[in-house]
Amino acid sequence: MKVDYALLTDLYQLTMAQGYWDAGKVGEQACFNMYFRDYPFKGGYAVACGMAQLADLVEQYRFADEDVAYLASLDAPGGGPLFNPDFLEYLRDLRLTVDIDAVLEGTIVFPHEPIVRVTGPIMQCQLIETALLNMVNFQTLIATKAARVVRSAAGRPVAEFGLRRAQGLGGVWASRAAVVGGCASTSDVLAGRLFDIPVSGTHAHSWVMSFSDELTAFREYARIFPKNCVLLVDTYDVEQGIRNAITVGLEMRERGERLAGIRIDSGDLSWLSKTARQMLDAAGLEDCGIVLSNDLDEFTIDSILGEGADVMSFGVGTKLASAYDQPTLGGVYKLAAVRPDKDAPWTSRLKISESVAKLTTPGVLDVRRYYLDNGIIAGDMVFDVTRPVDDRQIIVDPLDDLRQKRLAGKRFETLLAPLARGGQVALSREERSAMSARERALAGLETLDESQLRMLNPHTYPVGLELGLNERRRALVAELRHIV
Amino acid sequence: MKVDYALLTDLYQLTMAQGYWDAGKVGEQACFNMYFRDYPFKGGYAVACGMAQLADLVEQYRFADEDVAYLASLDAPGGGPLFNPDFLEYLRDLRLTVDIDAVLEGTIVFPHEPIVRVTGPIMQCQLIETALLNMVNFQTLIATKAARVVRSAAGRPVAEFGLRRAQGLGGVWASRAAVVGGCASTSDVLAGRLFDIPVSGTHAHSWVMSFSDELTAFREYARIFPKNCVLLVDTYDVEQGIRNAITVGLEMRERGERLAGIRIDSGDLSWLSKTARQMLDAAGLEDCGIVLSNDLDEFTIDSILGEGADVMSFGVGTKLASAYDQPTLGGVYKLAAVRPDKDAPWTSRLKISESVAKLTTPGVLDVRRYYLDNGIIAGDMVFDVTRPVDDRQIIVDPLDDLRQKRLAGKRFETLLAPLARGGQVALSREERSAMSARERALAGLETLDESQLRMLNPHTYPVGLELGLNERRRALVAELRHIV
Repeated sequence: MKVDYALLTDLYQLTMAQGYWDAGKVGEQACFNMYFRDYPFKGGYAVACGMAQLADLVEQYRFADEDVAYLASLDAPGGGPLFNPDFLEYLRDLRLTVDIDAVLEGTIVFPHEPIVRVTGPIMQCQLIETALLNMVNFQTLIATKAARVVRSAAGRPVAEFGLRRAQGLGGVWASRAAVVGGCASTSDVLAGRLFDIPVSGTHAHSWVMSFSDELTAFREYARIFPKNCVLLVDTYDVEQGIRNAITVGLEMRERGERLAGIRIDSGDLSWLSKTARQMLDAAGLEDCGIVLSNDLDEFTIDSILGEGADVMSFGVGTKLASAYDQPTLGGVYKLAAVRPDKDAPWTSRLKISESVAKLTTPGVLDVRRYYLDNGIIAGDMVFDVTRPVDDRQIIVDPLDDLRQKRLAGKRFETLLAPLARGGQVALSREERSAMSARERALAGLETLDESQLRMLNPHTYPVGLELGLNERRRALVAELRHIV
Repeated sequence: MKVDYALLTDLYQLTMAQGYWDAGKVGEQACFNMYFRDYPFKGGYAVACGMAQLADLVEQYRFADEDVAYLASLDAPGGGPLFNPDFLEYLRDLRLTVDIDAVLEGTIVFPHEPIVRVTGPIMQCQLIETALLNMVNFQTLIATKAARVVRSAAGRPVAEFGLRRAQGLGGVWASRAAVVGGCASTSDVLAGRLFDIPVSGTHAHSWVMSFSDELTAFREYARIFPKNCVLLVDTYDVEQGIRNAITVGLEMRERGERLAGIRIDSGDLSWLSKTARQMLDAAGLEDCGIVLSNDLDEFTIDSILGEGADVMSFGVGTKLASAYDQPTLGGVYKLAAVRPDKDAPWTSRLKISESVAKLTTPGVLDVRRYYLDNGIIAGDMVFDVTRPVDDRQIIVDPLDDLRQKRLAGKRFETLLAPLARGGQVALSREERSAMSARERALAGLETLDESQLRMLNPHTYPVGLELGLNERRRALVAELRHIV
């Protein structure tokens, strides 16, 4: 899809941009950190995703002539043109020069830690805010949902096929994020082509209904697709459908072919899968698998498997592609530091609020992830890259000063990596690929303790501010409230 | 956005297409009806939307060389290429020839009635199924949500600004659908350009934070945008923010300008709006309005206004753009009739199911909407355009035969209109425009009884099958169950 990224933004980013231009702040530098505040799905982790689309934006960002013409046509509510023609000429020539640092896609991430950091001219930082949040919020949400669903399937492949119920073209990124989160394939052909991810699919009820009877429909499908034959058995009557599939499966075996599976898409999936298994086995079709679908999510899959259903794979649509139970991730992008030019020192910035949860964290931030000797993660430290880290390596819960944890002596790695430098993408082809992100996610999930992977009431992972950062934040709050 | 509509589909549509091609069914004709089964948001109506994008698909549908090359690269799970090269050559030359009938965008619609009908070669009907459902399901959902939010605002303009939390590029269609459903504007600049809908926006907290102090930030904004000045007052302390806005508002008045409004984006919006009103009035700024935002939906707006808050307009984001409380509409697209060629009579098709709610309705369907003398709608009749309508004009509830209603003698109109004929778009430019759809929706909402507009437990509107259609459906069920 060709996207006009320059206009994929809120109008106020453009009015503010004109403001910065007019106020002589074009050279002024800013640092914005993106993070989210709450665990999605009340779970214990999130899987970062969407950074590849951010890299696409960096590469393709440009105001086309038609964009400038459109902006020139807008009127201010009080009359007259909204934008200054000289500013629009400035936009026409604008090229991104920002630096972006971000976790690699597939990285396991947690609330209150920066997952993307943008530094550069404040106008540019803001012009890309809306698209950046849109990309990273949504795909991180879906990759996380997929990881939960895939875990519930306990090793069985999960195919994503929610495009028809997805939120418009969001479905194309949802398919990608679902595979990053661990799905084996998607039904979404466009996502398959754009992102080089596996696609799968066989036939629908309409195939069966287009023939005079089900057996004929099955025989034709098996004839045409002997190497991709999964028969949907619930168009009219499931048990008769299974019997017809068995007839065709035995005919295929005669020809040296194999009925790969049957799919059940309605009714009591657990009960029907057991009935189907017995019927298939009794007919000698032990090698024919059972595919289940119909409004599944991590909880229904868990329940179906808990009842001992025999399942080869799952198809998951609506509830995955739309993240039905929590359709948005509330990631935010907050100004954290400014400086008059590239050579000046940074000045911290903070937005205070009635609620401590909405207080921002000042500084040019990054994350250190500490590990236990057994490879399980021990805690994440948010620190300011322009300041020294206190030797004790203590982290302080951003919502509760009393909760602290000492991480000194443990192995750590730093999470943010260059995504762009001076407006040029700094990621390798491999780092931008969905299948590499999928491997990273699968490996990352292995570093979590079982208690963090739990579907309900998981253990909360320690994420905190570096001791000095926490103290600077407290001092800044006091200063802004004039109670120093 | 340039979308590759030919691949915006589930893989099984393409495998079935090859099946139809291989099985000699390329000339076979089908009729599919699209409808949804449940009222979205437990409300009393839905606002149809997404048909303009379907028209775009009809115009642009084509398998590009890169699409064909991609499909040729796919392997069957059992080995070997998934697609036959001759079939792929057939796809390369394929042009849509289907007829599509649909309600016009903005039409008020209800469960169990067709809102889109596609007739033509069965393969083509299925190839466009996924994209059609994706477009119409999502946009109808958002237009409906917007209509609810706008109604709760009781005449005050509602600006949509959810792009940053929307589901990826779905946000661009969400902005359009929000305006169709009644929003006054969107923040989404790309949607503004693509769909010719009003855009709005002023500044964010970061504008304030980028200056050394709030008063300076406000003064600069007012200087640069004297005709579009709404000041966000809650970056540090709301009451001080209001005082600073008043200072700037009085300075603007001195210059013959006007502070259009202040915006409050956090805290107790109802309480803060009253405080703000008092402070503004006391300063003589009675003409400065109050804009509220922060996680609003129809219920919070209703509550805020119920407490007597003084509000000029609302900004609504996340919960509108993602339809947070019900993020998908479960519209389906079901095969309802087949014929061997264009000149043969139609044969009805039905999918039976354990649940009466999932039973499909056979036939080439349309809808008659009946009106009371006062212009309020009285009932919708689903009928088969190839059969005569019974003179009594009785409708039968599709879920309960005992619920019937006689509509004879009332004025009616027919809802489906040609969207495409022989693969050519049949809508006028006006019929495709979002702002015309918006007018249609506003007019349509006027035809609903107050009891149907209620936010909770609305009155259920009578939608039923024409008497003869209901009898043919019953007979077909009996036949398929072999109990004739």
